[in-house]
Amino acid sequence: MNTVTQMADIGIVGLAVMGQNLALNIHDKGFKVAVYNRTASKVDEFMQGPAKDSQIIACHDLKTFADSLQKPRRVMLMVKAGEVVDSFIQQLLPYLEKGDIIIDGGNSLFNDSDRRTHELHKQGILFIGSGVSGGEEGARHGPSLMPGGNKAAWPAVKEIFQSISAQVDGEPCCDWVGNDGAGHYVKMVHNGIEYGDMQLICEAYQMMREGMGMSGDEIQQVFAEWNEGVLDSYLIEITRDILSVKEPDGSLLIDHILDTAGQKGTGKWTGMNALDLGTPLTLIGEAVFARCLSALKDERVTASQVLPAKAAPFSGDKREMIDAIRDALYASKIISYAQGYMLMREAAATYGWELNYGGIAMMWRGGCIIRSQFLSKIRDAFERNPKLQNLLLDEFFIDAITEALPGWRKAVVQAIEIGVPVPTFSSALSFYDGYRSKRLPANLLQAQRDYFGAHTYERLDKPRGEFFHTNWTGRGGKVSASNYDV
Amino acid sequence: MNTVTQMADIGIVGLAVMGQNLALNIHDKGFKVAVYNRTASKVDEFMQGPAKDSQIIACHDLKTFADSLQKPRRVMLMVKAGEVVDSFIQQLLPYLEKGDIIIDGGNSLFNDSDRRTHELHKQGILFIGSGVSGGEEGARHGPSLMPGGNKAAWPAVKEIFQSISAQVDGEPCCDWVGNDGAGHYVKMVHNGIEYGDMQLICEAYQMMREGMGMSGDEIQQVFAEWNEGVLDSYLIEITRDILSVKEPDGSLLIDHILDTAGQKGTGKWTGMNALDLGTPLTLIGEAVFARCLSALKDERVTASQVLPAKAAPFSGDKREMIDAIRDALYASKIISYAQGYMLMREAAATYGWELNYGGIAMMWRGGCIIRSQFLSKIRDAFERNPKLQNLLLDEFFIDAITEALPGWRKAVVQAIEIGVPVPTFSSALSFYDGYRSKRLPANLLQAQRDYFGAHTYERLDKPRGEFFHTNWTGRGGKVSASNYDV
Repeated sequence: MNTVTQMADIGIVGLAVMGQNLALNIHDKGFKVAVYNRTASKVDEFMQGPAKDSQIIACHDLKTFADSLQKPRRVMLMVKAGEVVDSFIQQLLPYLEKGDIIIDGGNSLFNDSDRRTHELHKQGILFIGSGVSGGEEGARHGPSLMPGGNKAAWPAVKEIFQSISAQVDGEPCCDWVGNDGAGHYVKMVHNGIEYGDMQLICEAYQMMREGMGMSGDEIQQVFAEWNEGVLDSYLIEITRDILSVKEPDGSLLIDHILDTAGQKGTGKWTGMNALDLGTPLTLIGEAVFARCLSALKDERVTASQVLPAKAAPFSGDKREMIDAIRDALYASKIISYAQGYMLMREAAATYGWELNYGGIAMMWRGGCIIRSQFLSKIRDAFERNPKLQNLLLDEFFIDAITEALPGWRKAVVQAIEIGVPVPTFSSALSFYDGYRSKRLPANLLQAQRDYFGAHTYERLDKPRGEFFHTNWTGRGGKVSASNYDV
Repeated sequence: MNTVTQMADIGIVGLAVMGQNLALNIHDKGFKVAVYNRTASKVDEFMQGPAKDSQIIACHDLKTFADSLQKPRRVMLMVKAGEVVDSFIQQLLPYLEKGDIIIDGGNSLFNDSDRRTHELHKQGILFIGSGVSGGEEGARHGPSLMPGGNKAAWPAVKEIFQSISAQVDGEPCCDWVGNDGAGHYVKMVHNGIEYGDMQLICEAYQMMREGMGMSGDEIQQVFAEWNEGVLDSYLIEITRDILSVKEPDGSLLIDHILDTAGQKGTGKWTGMNALDLGTPLTLIGEAVFARCLSALKDERVTASQVLPAKAAPFSGDKREMIDAIRDALYASKIISYAQGYMLMREAAATYGWELNYGGIAMMWRGGCIIRSQFLSKIRDAFERNPKLQNLLLDEFFIDAITEALPGWRKAVVQAIEIGVPVPTFSSALSFYDGYRSKRLPANLLQAQRDYFGAHTYERLDKPRGEFFHTNWTGRGGKVSASNYDV
């Protein structure tokens, strides 16, 4: 071995399980990897454990680490999001040269990746903020990777990233997302969509379990069946599997699990960003709030004793209702992805990114929690029309919604009548009925705002941008009706 | 006149219409007012116009302004929220002494009022951030005032504030809200609730107008009738009035207004804060998103041509349905206020405030957009039980919901069948059915999270705080089932 071959293609900082697994994954694909961890003993444990017999280069200080890397150096941080990332960047800088590349593979806020891209650019360092999805399993055997930041770094990273990512039908689940914080932004939206997908499945489950009184085994059969059709996806598959896990006494484990859901923040970030950008991301919003409500277990138990249900028991045709619930789940999922894409489009316009919408669907098609066949349909839609304004205006999705709509309405009506909460099914349907409405009642809302706050309004029979104020009370005022009043 | 009587009780900085009206209001109540504006000509215009023949003291520079004020000086800023407030504070400080009081009456973010309270406290200046609601009319004749900040300032401001605020049944719509940013926080929640109330009315209107094909005159009669019952409120009243305003050709003005709603930010702040605090504020969230969707007018028109409705026309009993819509509106409104109070309770716990919940309802009972008889019921609930956990657990609201529930379900079912979007009616109902549910499907969600991310779960048959992980796939893993794993 000469010195050149001993130089590493990439270095990993941070040997928690994600960093370890990513290092092993990269090594398996034939690249030379150097590793460093702040607590040096972790490096030794890794080398004596999972990395035993590997060609991975163990480093106990940052100078050795930097010296072991080929130039331009590629350093990937797999450390806790937030200040820790900034701290490691500062520690690394003295050992780096112009043109070197720092990649942050943590769950960072996109705003931080924006800032880091710009700050490091000034110092001649190329920054990439990359979403890494798929958890420990994904990191080890093929994650979904969503890199964004300084595009000049992409050619030097592309081969490694596309080799280690999940592959579906021979295509890597990794491509360049966009400038600055775009990679972490798309990862955030991915997580929000994950919140939505999970809540949708929960509502279908609740309708069958509590609303229709079906047994766990029956419901397990339904999810198994659904996984063979349009709903085929990782989350439906694991739901099927979860419903087959039994306790020693033969009862279903799921029936013993406490019904309070936790959250890790990215779902709420997505909702907060949607509010900030003014994009109607109703389904994910409801999904996040549903978790918050679930957390109020004690209060719900109290409320269940004093608040009435006044709901009827289920009395329809079981098979028909199961199909209707499937339609509701599928149609609502389409709405959720359409809303997520609306948000990304608005973000691209607001933050000045060029996003590859079809490519994003492909990045999510493998390696991550929301992986499904469904995502290919989104890619297809953007291939048919790269300028597609909204997924709901694509022919495939129009047909899908058309077919599912009667069952969707039926399932939500049934849920309301039997008193099963379906916040995302019904929110999605309200959004659909609003989106396809030429006229919404916002004319009344504008009249109210003009009445109490002289906010003015536009007219249907006048060009946009011409504003009117009416003296509604007849009691006078400084601005009179039909005046131009921007 | 001696010098003492010429000294002003309070000074107003900023003579836009809100500042002008507030100055005149304070003057009318027998207090001496000094005014200052950055553009001096505005001061002269005010003195020669609305303030002609008043005893208001006009000041053209900040030194004269400060010298004209009794000590401790009370200076109220009525300027644009944001940096302008900080800039005026900096300009004022050289002319102020320890113990003087600065009041910000703008639409500031509560975080800014938090910061200003602390920063000014260090310099011996007492800061109050006060919500001022009711627009120009309110400022002139009696606003709802929500002061918070440094409580040491309250005794010196109380008399003026409670004199100029709206009065209902002999009680002022103004009381001390809480420390730091609490005043502006409560104003923010007020605005969020306003967004909800307006959207609720819009959905009732849309059901009657588009869903049931009722004429504007018929709908006007319904709102007139509703304003005599439990829905009696300013917003129902102005809706009734709006529906009677006609164009020269005899058509209703409302039918000519463009259906795209604007927003000013406080609604979205409320939603973002709720997501941040993890409180299920679903109704206001949907109301904000409904405005966002309304703004996509062109896209909706396109969508209306390609997406199906597949909905049935209305064919039920009209009178019954109108009553059901009223029930839906009333019950949903209860949910919205209950959620708003949940948010304030969570904020108080998070930010360390002691909030006077019954008092807040009283502050909103007059002078502001959401004023209604309904708010007295909230005050009553907190008088019955100051530690009330949730409005929905109060006897009055339990009875109200119990009575409205069948009509509420009926109206939402009808809306779904006829294809009228009712995002807040249905979101409120889903929340209700979730809140009164002892069991929600979050057990499945926790199983999923444990399956793909080893997030662990708690069990119904074990104490809270004990966490379990299951090896769902049977493929092994580092953490085994029933292990304690915080």
